[in-house]
Amino acid sequence: MIVTVTLNPALDLTYPVGALVPHRTHRVTGVAERAGGKGLNVARVLHALGEPVLATGLLGGPSGAVVASLLATEGVPASFVPIAGDTRRTVAVVDPGGATGFWEPGPVVPAAEWLRFVDHFRELVGRAAVVTLCGSLPPGLPIDAYAVLSRLAAAEHVPVLLDTSGPALRHGLAAAPTVAKPNAEELAELGTVSLEGGALVVSHGPEGLHAITPDGEFRCAPPYPVDGNPTGAGDACAAALARGLRDGAGWPELLADAVALGAAAVASPVAGSFDPDVYRSTRAALAVTSGGGSC
Amino acid sequence: MIVTVTLNPALDLTYPVGALVPHRTHRVTGVAERAGGKGLNVARVLHALGEPVLATGLLGGPSGAVVASLLATEGVPASFVPIAGDTRRTVAVVDPGGATGFWEPGPVVPAAEWLRFVDHFRELVGRAAVVTLCGSLPPGLPIDAYAVLSRLAAAEHVPVLLDTSGPALRHGLAAAPTVAKPNAEELAELGTVSLEGGALVVSHGPEGLHAITPDGEFRCAPPYPVDGNPTGAGDACAAALARGLRDGAGWPELLADAVALGAAAVASPVAGSFDPDVYRSTRAALAVTSGGGSC
Repeated sequence: MIVTVTLNPALDLTYPVGALVPHRTHRVTGVAERAGGKGLNVARVLHALGEPVLATGLLGGPSGAVVASLLATEGVPASFVPIAGDTRRTVAVVDPGGATGFWEPGPVVPAAEWLRFVDHFRELVGRAAVVTLCGSLPPGLPIDAYAVLSRLAAAEHVPVLLDTSGPALRHGLAAAPTVAKPNAEELAELGTVSLEGGALVVSHGPEGLHAITPDGEFRCAPPYPVDGNPTGAGDACAAALARGLRDGAGWPELLADAVALGAAAVASPVAGSFDPDVYRSTRAALAVTSGGGSC
Repeated sequence: MIVTVTLNPALDLTYPVGALVPHRTHRVTGVAERAGGKGLNVARVLHALGEPVLATGLLGGPSGAVVASLLATEGVPASFVPIAGDTRRTVAVVDPGGATGFWEPGPVVPAAEWLRFVDHFRELVGRAAVVTLCGSLPPGLPIDAYAVLSRLAAAEHVPVLLDTSGPALRHGLAAAPTVAKPNAEELAELGTVSLEGGALVVSHGPEGLHAITPDGEFRCAPPYPVDGNPTGAGDACAAALARGLRDGAGWPELLADAVALGAAAVASPVAGSFDPDVYRSTRAALAVTSGGGSC
């Protein structure tokens, strides 16, 4: 199974409104609630693909309970460590001009809870085929939390996919995860990075993926542009890469699958889901054009 | 005891942000959670005044559970009827320019739950000295819900204070509550109203209260302007009127107390609380100036 780690999940609320006007009161016409956070999107995509997956991480408070129950409703297997703090909410106010986001801070996680998670992860990693470490770290966690988890996985010869940004990415890279998947902006923020044996898969949005690996460089772009909602497309790419790592796929195949699943996620209105028809057709188009070092 | 009915309570979230910019993502610097809804503010003010009070109404889902636990933490006695739907949330995004509100719709309440509440209310009203009926009705409730409750209270000779707006106010007035307390705007929306024996206390914001009663008309204004947050000031007025109704106070005293408590609520930053010093000093100033038909 693929173990997806989400240390800072969220209860995502979407509020449709006629038009957002600052300093007015808006009656929201309906509320959509969704289990959020990059790692949960990865788990959801893998589950929809029929792949054995286990979502883990930290959940607490009433919002954490709602996230757990939403995951259960979707049938995504999960084993989270309970924390005393409250899982954060995000609110996306959507009007014809686009989305306005309000992100609560994550809960402050004390050391004892982090150590409890490390113990839990140690138990899970022995049964894992691949581990994904995705998204931000909540306040209180050591900034090298992903490096700690990466090394535990490496000790069990379990490949690791890391998808985060900022200091959590910089410190995570120090443990040489099998694949780190920042987007170009997140990578640029870091300045220079040292890879120490792992591979870097950089996403360039609609221009596709660029992999810098011990076996050379590889590129893959979608065969045609896809309109839609790019939120969650990176998480679909991460899901494809995790599955490919598990299966020992070669880089051209890995990238083609990740690009196709990313495009299929753009074609789906909701983060964490994808359009299966777009996935199949994009994947087929890339299989025809692929060959050599790029696809 | 005073029974405060809140049929559409809310979990109020306050999100401080640097500056609200539409179609951007904002990191919220902290989250304040509060049990919200006009009736709960009335209950909270009465509890802070040391008056025996019981908050009732409808609560459901994870947000309803948080509201119940927030009330318990504040020590406000409560006996709510559980519903299957989710108690709504309100989000107030606060930046230096003011507050931008997002109000979720209330839960749809089916007839069976409404009838269960009516039974519960019937039990409580026998022990009530006064009943307050405050705030909006959630979807699904009969539009004359307040009239039904008013008549049940009247049958037990229990005075009723009604504070709502729109159709819920119009239909509630048909049952001749002891006192209806709309603000001037809410009253103007209705056009003509027939009182049928009850009293109307109209709030004019900083200009005070105007009572139209079977005993004549009375007016009372704050002795000096108070700066602050007017949200919840009307609920503090309602709390004072409910207490005065219980004690059989005369109109000049009733209005003076309501104006003083309203001013004290304006002086407090949070709805449902009041500044005791402002309350005492305003009340004292009004006692001196009061006399005859106005204060």
